[in-house]
Order: sequence, then C-alpha cells, then structure tokens
Amino acid sequence: MATTASEAEIQVLEAEVQAQGTIVRELKAAGEDATEAIATLLEKKKALALAKGEEWPPPKGKGKGKGKGKGKGDARAAAKEERRKAREAKSRAAEGPTGLMAELVASSDFGRYQMILSEPESLTGRVFTDIADIDAAMDGQEVTVRGYAQTVRGQGKRAFIVLRSTIHTIQCHYSGNKAMSKFLASISNESLVDVTATVSIPPEEIKDTTKSGVELQVLKCYVVNAAAELPFQIRDASAPSSSAEVAATAGDGDGTETGVADGTVDERGFAHVGQDTRLDFRWIDLRTRANQGIFRMRSVAVNAFQNFLVSQGFTGINSPKLIQTASEGGADVFTVDFFGDKAYLAQSPQLYKQMAICAGLEKVFEIGPVFRAENSNTNRHLVEFVGADIEATFKEHYHEVLVTITNALVAVFDELSSDKYADLRAAVNEQYPFEPLVYRYEQETDSPYKFPILVMDYPEAIAMLTEAGVELGDGSHGDLDTAAERELGRLVREKYGTDVFCVDAYPSSVRPFYTACRPDNPAVSNSYDIFVRGREILSGAQRIHDPAMLVERANSLGVDLTPIQSYVDAFKHGAPPHAGGGFGVERIVLQFFALDNVRKVSMFPRDPKRCHP
Amino acid sequence: MATTASEAEIQVLEAEVQAQGTIVRELKAAGEDATEAIATLLEKKKALALAKGEEWPPPKGKGKGKGKGKGKGDARAAAKEERRKAREAKSRAAEGPTGLMAELVASSDFGRYQMILSEPESLTGRVFTDIADIDAAMDGQEVTVRGYAQTVRGQGKRAFIVLRSTIHTIQCHYSGNKAMSKFLASISNESLVDVTATVSIPPEEIKDTTKSGVELQVLKCYVVNAAAELPFQIRDASAPSSSAEVAATAGDGDGTETGVADGTVDERGFAHVGQDTRLDFRWIDLRTRANQGIFRMRSVAVNAFQNFLVSQGFTGINSPKLIQTASEGGADVFTVDFFGDKAYLAQSPQLYKQMAICAGLEKVFEIGPVFRAENSNTNRHLVEFVGADIEATFKEHYHEVLVTITNALVAVFDELSSDKYADLRAAVNEQYPFEPLVYRYEQETDSPYKFPILVMDYPEAIAMLTEAGVELGDGSHGDLDTAAERELGRLVREKYGTDVFCVDAYPSSVRPFYTACRPDNPAVSNSYDIFVRGREILSGAQRIHDPAMLVERANSLGVDLTPIQSYVDAFKHGAPPHAGGGFGVERIVLQFFALDNVRKVSMFPRDPKRCHP
Repeated sequence: MATTASEAEIQVLEAEVQAQGTIVRELKAAGEDATEAIATLLEKKKALALAKGEEWPPPKGKGKGKGKGKGKGDARAAAKEERRKAREAKSRAAEGPTGLMAELVASSDFGRYQMILSEPESLTGRVFTDIADIDAAMDGQEVTVRGYAQTVRGQGKRAFIVLRSTIHTIQCHYSGNKAMSKFLASISNESLVDVTATVSIPPEEIKDTTKSGVELQVLKCYVVNAAAELPFQIRDASAPSSSAEVAATAGDGDGTETGVADGTVDERGFAHVGQDTRLDFRWIDLRTRANQGIFRMRSVAVNAFQNFLVSQGFTGINSPKLIQTASEGGADVFTVDFFGDKAYLAQSPQLYKQMAICAGLEKVFEIGPVFRAENSNTNRHLVEFVGADIEATFKEHYHEVLVTITNALVAVFDELSSDKYADLRAAVNEQYPFEPLVYRYEQETDSPYKFPILVMDYPEAIAMLTEAGVELGDGSHGDLDTAAERELGRLVREKYGTDVFCVDAYPSSVRPFYTACRPDNPAVSNSYDIFVRGREILSGAQRIHDPAMLVERANSLGVDLTPIQSYVDAFKHGAPPHAGGGFGVERIVLQFFALDNVRKVSMFPRDPKRCHP
Repeated sequence: MATTASEAEIQVLEAEVQAQGTIVRELKAAGEDATEAIATLLEKKKALALAKGEEWPPPKGKGKGKGKGKGKGDARAAAKEERRKAREAKSRAAEGPTGLMAELVASSDFGRYQMILSEPESLTGRVFTDIADIDAAMDGQEVTVRGYAQTVRGQGKRAFIVLRSTIHTIQCHYSGNKAMSKFLASISNESLVDVTATVSIPPEEIKDTTKSGVELQVLKCYVVNAAAELPFQIRDASAPSSSAEVAATAGDGDGTETGVADGTVDERGFAHVGQDTRLDFRWIDLRTRANQGIFRMRSVAVNAFQNFLVSQGFTGINSPKLIQTASEGGADVFTVDFFGDKAYLAQSPQLYKQMAICAGLEKVFEIGPVFRAENSNTNRHLVEFVGADIEATFKEHYHEVLVTITNALVAVFDELSSDKYADLRAAVNEQYPFEPLVYRYEQETDSPYKFPILVMDYPEAIAMLTEAGVELGDGSHGDLDTAAERELGRLVREKYGTDVFCVDAYPSSVRPFYTACRPDNPAVSNSYDIFVRGREILSGAQRIHDPAMLVERANSLGVDLTPIQSYVDAFKHGAPPHAGGGFGVERIVLQFFALDNVRKVSMFPRDPKRCHP
C-alpha cells in the first residue's frame, strides 16, 4: 500500500473537506444538530493532513504542517513533507497548460484537459486509433491514441511512456523540448493520456511491450485524467504466479493466506500484491493483462453458450430470484425482507426452468445469478455466482438432452480455444501458465446418442479410483469428494488423454428428490456430472415429470413439498419428460484456464467475509 | 376455476395422503411430536375428499363418501360424485392398455405409457416430426408427432384431436376401431400425446388450427402424460382482449380489477380468466399462442441486444446483486441477512459497470436482474425485473455512446421485426392486436454523430407539449410524468411519424448526482431518455469521471458518499470519460407489442403483493 498521496488524491481530499465544511455550516445555520457532520469533517481533515504529510491533530498556535514534532512519527511526517514539496516543485515546473480540449490541442503540444464535458466547442474531431491496430505497416503514419500511462520515465530532454489499452502496450518516445519532456516525465502511472505520434520501427525489438515491433514518436501528449498514487503497481499485480503463491492457494483454503505481506519484494523484484488488496482495489487489479484476458474470455464463454443454444431452438428465460419459499431443502438460503414478509434468494432456477418446460417452452436456458448462503471460506465457494442453466424436453431418453448439454460445452470450449482469442489466452497464460484444454473425445458405442466428450458410467469411475488405491469414504454409494474428483481427473487424463468427461448414472442417494431413478434399479438415477480438469462444472439429470411419483419420492426422502406446491402442481397437466443441468460460469472459465481460485474469475466476488466493494 | 378433479389429480392427492400417513406413523414410532404432521395429513385428506366429491369431515359410522348430506353443499357434492362416477366409467372403458413405451407401441395402436424413465429396453427409436414442419408437400407421408391435446371430441367411431406444439396446432382425425376412438375421445385436454399418422389434405381448410391446409389421419396414439382437470381452458385464456379488459388495464391500476369474475362467459363465448388466476397457474397460461410468442420474442430481443454489443467489441459482465450499501440513495431497497450483517439487493448495476469502465474494460454490458422495493401496485411496476445495461468510454463527446445505444435498440427492433419471426408476432397479435412499430428515423443535422432514431433536445419536447396545451406540473424544470410522456409519444408520432425517439439534455435537477452537467450551463445535463410508444424504456447519461467533481456534486445535492467510498475511489486512477444507460428488457418487449401490463412480459412477475409461484 502506498503511504504518500499524489497531487490528484490531495485535490480530491481537499474537495471533500471543503464540501463537508459546507454541510456543517448549513446545518449550523439551520439550527440543526451538526455533531455527526463535524465528526465526519474532522475525519476528512485528518485524512487530508496525513495525505499531505502534515501532523494530526495540527499543533496549536502554529502554522499548518509546520509544527515541530518529536519522535519517530514526526520524523516520518517531516520526511513526507519534504518529499511532497519536492514533488510539488517538480510537478509545477512540468505541469504545462490546462484547458478545454480543443483550445489546448490548438495552442499547445502538451497539457492537461479540463474534465471532458462534451461541450461542442471543445471537440477536436481527431480520429483515434486503437493501440491494438498499430503495426509495422503503419511506419511513418501519424496516429492519435488514448491509453493508460503504465510506466513513465524521463531523462533530460527525453521521455518514455509505455501506453496500455486493454491487453496491448506500446512504447512512446519523446525527444526535444525540455518543458514537454519534463511534463511527460511528470505524468503519474495509470493516468489516462492522449498521444499524437508518428509510428516508427525501433532499431531492435522492444522488450516489455506487446507491440515490440513498433514505437510511437510523440508529437503531442495530453493528460485526460490524472491518476492519484496507486495502492500497488500494475507491473507487480501482473507478476507471474510465484511457486509460493501457487502452493498457498492450491489447497482448499480461501487463498488469502499466502503468508506473504503486501509489498514484500520477491527474488524477481516484484512487490507482493495480496488477494484482498487486489479485490479492495479491483478497478486497478482488473487492468492487468491477465485479468483483461480472463474477463473478456468469460464474456466470450457466456456468449458462445447462449448462441449455441439459440441455434438449437432454445428460449432464454429469466426466472425470479426473489422467491417465497426456500427452493431446495431450505438450508444455505439468504433471507430477504419482502414488504414485511420473508422471501428468499433463489439457490438455482431449477424449479422455474422446470415450470417453463411444463409451460410448453420445450427447451430453455437461463444465465443469471444464483445465491448460496453457505458459510464456506474456500477457494472454490462463492455465495453469489452465475449459473448457466439448461432444461429441455426429450422424446424417449434423457441422453437426447445430454447430447445437447455436452455439445453446448464443446461449443463454448471451441470458441474459447479459437484463434480469434489467441492474444487473450496468451495474456492469461503469461501470468497464470496453463496447458491448453483437451476436451473432444470420440467414443465407440452402440448407443444412438453420440457425445462429443468422454462419457462413462459411475461404476467405471469408481473402479478407476479403487484400482488406483483411492480411499472412498463410504464405498461406491456416496458422492465423490474434491480430492477423489481431482484424482479421477488425473486418471482419466492418463487413460483417455482428455481433460473433460461426464460421469453418468449416479447413485440415487446422492441426488435431489426430483431426480428420476431407474425403474429396474431405483438405486441408480438418470443423472450426470461433467468434470473439467478434475473439477465438477455441471450437475444434471432427468427430472421426475409424473406428479404422483414426485410426491412419493419426496416423501420417501422426507422432503416436505408443502412450500413448493405450485411446483408439484405444474406436473399435473401433461408435463413432458425432460432433463437438464446447470453449469457454473465461473467454473467453466476457472477450469479452462486451470486457475486456483474462483475469486479470480468473479469480477466482484462475494463470500461470507466479503460483500464489498 | 374448475370445481371437480380429474382422475390424475385424485391419484396425486391419494399419493400425497398415503405419503403423509407414513410420515405421521414414523414420527409416532420415533416418539416425536406429530401434531403438525397430523394437521397436514388432515388438510391433505380434506383436499382428497373434496376432489372426490366426498363430504368433509366424513360422516361418522358411514362409508367413505356415502354419507347423506343436507343443504346446498351436499347437493353439490352429490352432483360431483355422480359426474365423477360417469367419468370413471367412461374412462375405464376407454383406458386401453398401459405399458412401457416399446412394449406398448409394439403390441397396441393406443394406450398410456408408463412414466418414461429412459430404460434402454423401452426405446422405440421412432423419428419424431415437429408439427411446425408439417405441410401439404408431405401429403401421404407417415409421421410421428408429440403434442398437447388442446381439444378432444369423439363421435361414435370417429375422434378429433387438435394437437399443439409451441404456437402450432394441427387437426388429428381418427375413424375406425371403436375401442380406439373411445380411447381417443377420453383423453383429457392438455394431456401430452404421441400420434403416428398419415399426412393428408383436407377437402376444405380447417378452421381453428394454424396448420389449416393439412390434417393427420391417426394410425396410433399414446398418452405420454395425462393432464388433470384444468383450472381454465387454453381456448379461454387465448381469447382476444375484449374491449372491457383493455379499458380496465389501460390506466395506472395493476390490471387485476377488470370487474369480471373468473369463469364469466362473455358474449363471444369465452370464459373470463383473470390475471391472478393466470399467474397462479402460469405453467398453463404460458401455453397460449400469445404467451409462447411473447416469451420467445423476449428471448430474441435479449439475444439481439447481446450479439449487437459483442459485435461492437463490448464485454459482457456480471456485477454482484448482493451489495453492502444501498447503491443509489437508499430508498426502495431490499434488505438481506448476510451472515448476521445487513446487505442489500442491487437496484441497478450502475456503480459496478462504471467501476468496470474504470478498470479499463472500455465497453461493457450486463443483462441481469435488478430489484426495487417500491410499494407500487400499477401495471408498470415490478419489484424485480431484468436490466439490459450499457456503459462505454468515449473520446470527446457522450453522443459517441448514444450512437451505440440507439443502434443497439434498432438492432433489437430489426430482429424482432424480422420475417423470421412473423409467425411469433402473429401469435401475439391475434390475442393482443398491435400496430407494427415504426422506429427508424433519418435526421438532417450538422452533428458528426448519426443516430438511427429521432433525437430531440428536452426544450423541444417541452415546447411540443406546451403548444399542445399539456399542463406540466412544475414547468420545464421537472421530469415528465406518465401522462405527459404518453402525450409526447402521440405528438411525436403525429409530427415525425415515428414511435421511437430520444430526448436529450435533461435538466440536471431530475438526474442522479453522478450525471455530468454542462459547464456553460450546469442546469442542463448530458443525459437522455429513450421512449417507445410514449413510454420510457431507457434512461442514461454521461457520468462524472473526475472524483473531485463527483464529490462536489454529491455534496451540493446532499448525497452522502461515505457508504460508496470505493465507487468514488475508482475514479482516482485515470478514469476515462464514459456514458451509458439501462434498458428494461420487459419494457422493450412490452412496448414493441404495445401491451398494457408489464406482468404480461415477465414469466413469474414479482410485485409487492406477489412473490409466488
């Protein structure tokens, strides 16, 4: 974490203090209680003083920040004050003119825009080029780009800025006017800047930028919005996972306890940026190339899923998230105050997507949030995540639906693996190295249903595990635990050479009451899970569509159907045979990239200890 | 509402009673308190007795349902009992064989499948044809279809079934074997059936089916899942809006008080199905052609929106719905118990999509639920709906983003208006007549930004209204109320011939604190609304991206930023100029079809009085 504040930050704090002062004055003028407002004002004044490196509380009878202190704290404050003065002096010298965009661009080659407020008279009509599109073929051309100043350094009359936009970085070089080079060198890291420049080809490849074969010779440069001092540097946040980090987060912990303090510089010269710090300042953390890659690819995955299903005649639905009764079982459910009554947050769209099927919609999908109030602090659990659910009728066998589900997954992986996104994958790979996913598998079977991935029955999976000497808690009748799943993934990869497989025909005992069982052997259910790199990413099944059988099954398992009577009733009017399943969007992306913590694929993750920012 | 129950329904109730009995016995055996379970058992027994037309409580010392009653209720029960017996007798005679699918298909031309449980030995391998795909060119071909028996009638050795799948209906005709025709005639409405038949061309067009030029000559027919008696008939639920209904729901009421009792038969012969009844049995109501059209088109709209934005380089995001602080203002927000702390449901993804912009994602969209705990019971308000949000950076003017927003809307309307969906639109139009939407508008302007729809400044909108003599509550400084908006829609349609327009440059006073104002005239903001047929479907603006200005503006409006400090902080590190807006998915569909009540476009609507099913 930074301990000194930049000019921009101080400017903000000053505005806050000023504004809070107004509130206090107004309250006093109105004869109202200003106690709380004053407390806030003092808090803000304190923050400002500390940011400025001044003493707090201010020494009485002495000028602001000029008091002579004693002890360690005061020495630090004094040192800060000195640094601040040095910075201020440097900054003033290099600040350059400030003005409305058009005015400034017309009158000076550098400077800071006033806030862009879309005034017609301030428009310049410049055509901007994406950094992504600049290549050697543009040698000699003049371009204008906007990007973040990722690193800035000055040397006499020269200045260098590495400019970044999304996952692309390019080196900008300036040599000439001393005032301008001072200005360039004074730009704080992560400020947003406009650069007009001539494209050139450097004598040798530039390291540390993605556009290694081109360079920009700066003609003009303007700061769009200056960045305050950063809590951490993008360079540090982009450091390839160290082996220590991977080890610390590979288990079932929540991945926060790496045992390394924020700011600790490792042997490679990277300052450690802990997960909590990243999440607290997510808007900075997300600027790393890896995160730009992860979240753009996540969007690609969702879109591929949706488009595949639409191409198969599916209808997208949005089921309610506010529900009157805890949907499945009642445990781990969030409670909401609903106009004085109690309501709950849906743990899955299960019951509703089935009702949509009973409504004759035939094939439906939903992409939306699901909520689990499970008090688990691991690297696999979130209390809010995004489900990608499928439910569809079939004519004679639930494998008709499983074919669609597995094809949907393959469509997603095909898209994620497409050449179009090679640079996004590379951006992730550079920080979090991963092996490309092997997912297609051609299976010789007598079945009329052809799956694009490996599908095996549950007993085969159990046999593989027991043969390998894996201890299974309760024999072949239980669900697999995380360790067993991981080992199964390893064994399958070894035997079949694929990272993706489906286990079919789970024991009925480990599936919900609405799962259809086999009439010849009710201990076996028509249900399946899909695994990617040894982790479950989908659970699904044929559902019971006969209301009498549903009631019988629920009762035999001790499930009270009274609260979900509408769900039962929905099957009374000619409900079709149907099956489905639910993917976790986070898990698809997590496993595709073989990442170690689900928080890495959720933009603003929620767990029992985190509901912010 | 139906007052007598079918065999299937009774069968379910019997299973429920039996299962509850087991629970009671088990509790007693375990020595536990069974009071509640017994109460439930009695409730279930009562429901069963009433369904069977028996007396409740059962007369002591007399056989079940054989007690002699007195008064009106008993007379009704007796009548029910008679009807039930008649139905039973008829049903038994016509029931036909029952068995596993393959067995039955091999041994008989008709019958009822046992529940389809995907047993390999029960598969028939039949190839099913969609009703949608049957046409006159298939004359003479044998097909197998699955569909709902929408209406069934028998006449001696002949039987007719109108079979429905999604929005398509076809007439099935059988003539021959008396046992089979009896069986066919006994099939209850909305049962799901398999029909194998020869396609034929009827001597004259068939009324009341969408496949008017073809007919199916039934060879085999099996019931997949029999329907219990319906609370209302699909025919009645599909009745074209009567003028009384339209009048009752056109205002600002919640559209439930049409003053017509459920079941009242109108002059056209349709029994009234009230909105509450429809929503209580939504899985039946959604089977109407209009609803199949509405919800499939809703999916088309969402997909078009998403694909357009992806084509423009946007990244889809999912922001958290559980947030620690009330996002905007704090009023009308649902409270959630978050592991003992308080959390809130997001009223919009506003702050998070802006943070994604601050994170360098440049152009983002989100399609997801939003929650407003507003206690409004009108035909326009839901407490949970789906937002389609856009946020994007711009270089010099927020109109760059408004161009994208308006193009996204036009892409949605283009898709909804496409020939591909003519039959879905017709299905809606038949029940809820509407005029095709006029939305494209070519405007002559000097602006470098070309919009595909009409865009006017707020003062022009106000001038149009005042010229037309519309009273504006607080002059030109306020927001438009619903009536003014509707009138504006009418005036614009009259003057410009378009149903869709954007009003730009709203007064700052009616927009949130984060809206950018014009520096030359701070009373005017860089904000806009989009209207379709006189109703707002999007609200948006340029946002303040300078943290000092944001703090200043919030304070001048008395907005406390303390709870959303992270949001303010996100602008401190080089935030780019950006703008955006939020569509309501329901409103897009509602206005495209000119429907009168937002509940018609929400699959399971939530309002202050409805959190079920």
